[in-house]
Amino acid sequence: MTYCVAAQMNEGLVFASDSRTNAGVDNIATFKKMTVWQPGDRALVLLSAGNLAVCQSAITLLNEGIEMGPGNKHTMVNVPSMLDAARLVGAAVREMYRLDGEALRAQGTDFNVSFILGGQIAGGEMRLYQIYSAGNFVEATAETPYFQLGEAKYGKPIIDRIIRPNTVLRAATKCILISIDSTLRSNLTVGMPIDLAVYRRGALKLYALRHIEENDRYFNGLRTAWMDGIRTVFKELPDPDWLNGH
Amino acid sequence: MTYCVAAQMNEGLVFASDSRTNAGVDNIATFKKMTVWQPGDRALVLLSAGNLAVCQSAITLLNEGIEMGPGNKHTMVNVPSMLDAARLVGAAVREMYRLDGEALRAQGTDFNVSFILGGQIAGGEMRLYQIYSAGNFVEATAETPYFQLGEAKYGKPIIDRIIRPNTVLRAATKCILISIDSTLRSNLTVGMPIDLAVYRRGALKLYALRHIEENDRYFNGLRTAWMDGIRTVFKELPDPDWLNGH
Repeated sequence: MTYCVAAQMNEGLVFASDSRTNAGVDNIATFKKMTVWQPGDRALVLLSAGNLAVCQSAITLLNEGIEMGPGNKHTMVNVPSMLDAARLVGAAVREMYRLDGEALRAQGTDFNVSFILGGQIAGGEMRLYQIYSAGNFVEATAETPYFQLGEAKYGKPIIDRIIRPNTVLRAATKCILISIDSTLRSNLTVGMPIDLAVYRRGALKLYALRHIEENDRYFNGLRTAWMDGIRTVFKELPDPDWLNGH
Repeated sequence: MTYCVAAQMNEGLVFASDSRTNAGVDNIATFKKMTVWQPGDRALVLLSAGNLAVCQSAITLLNEGIEMGPGNKHTMVNVPSMLDAARLVGAAVREMYRLDGEALRAQGTDFNVSFILGGQIAGGEMRLYQIYSAGNFVEATAETPYFQLGEAKYGKPIIDRIIRPNTVLRAATKCILISIDSTLRSNLTVGMPIDLAVYRRGALKLYALRHIEENDRYFNGLRTAWMDGIRTVFKELPDPDWLNGH
């Protein structure tokens, strides 16, 4: 399983992904699910979930380039806009389906892949997209400013409660890390380390890019502070008068 | 969909269930998923999920009685122990499978039903069980002192963080209500009103039995206090030094 999440606020973007892949509980491995491009005029972050071979090959295509029209070979570092970048990821997914779809079907394996793409390219606005197996995509809005891939349910309530367009990056980063923590605690097939990227609108380069390991002092402190905090909130919640004395 | 949850603490038991049933999003209805027996020498609470017709018929059997041996017809109000009560629920499930299983299969409908049963019978200990579609069952332990039915994931992290055998009933009740709130916010097919039962070890009758409607002043106050509380905890969480100034 996988857990990837990204949120778009007025101030910027926050991305996080776990790094557990598995083909059954007795065959787990660690793979980075976050790919970053920041050649100077742009910052792009891609999170991937699904069939690992398909994801890796799609990313190879994004680096090598895909014909997006006659004589018009786009890569993630030369594509002119975020919308074109989302289309490029969609085209890579469709190309992988053309190449691998039938062989996967013959082996009884689903063609199962999805991506979150966010960032900003010089001259354009910051954007956040989710790209599906069919190569089509949706964009985040003020009403739903975040996307999740994989094991989304455990970590969703905290995001629903906290993330708004006006949430500051610092708070959104902590919220995303708590969302990952909730998922790690409940699903063994989502695992450390965590990759985290923070982008500040207009910067065209990442503000922070962290690889958070098991022994990360800040993350462990955050988990503990959150646990202690919600226990304190619990103690202070109003008691029902129909339970007085207990 | 359904969300039912029950937890066993040293001090007692807390049960809660939503009351939304649906056969597609355009065909929803409200049905109580909690059944209570407290004839004097016992307090039993049964939560049900799955095919509504099967659940209701199984409960009818539990009231009418099932032969559990020659000349030994048990109902929920005369069964001698909690273990026998769990076996009785299992027997009702198996009887329903015998009666309805083939007809359901012919209509392409799964025989899909599960129960949580908890309580205490005079002369025995307090117990909490989960009974499966096959009529077999498991008992809650100190390591996993709770069971959930239906849409369990959204409401699980908060229970994992709070419920322990030594959690007091008051805190456990609030935790279960927050767990329900998290689920209501994220899954439209889980709906109000909520039924809530609280049992105190040794009492042989429920300490509280509440039907919580949309306009319930306490529940709405709890939701608001929780939202405000976790937002405050968020503000006070340590900031990563790699995000200083944001």
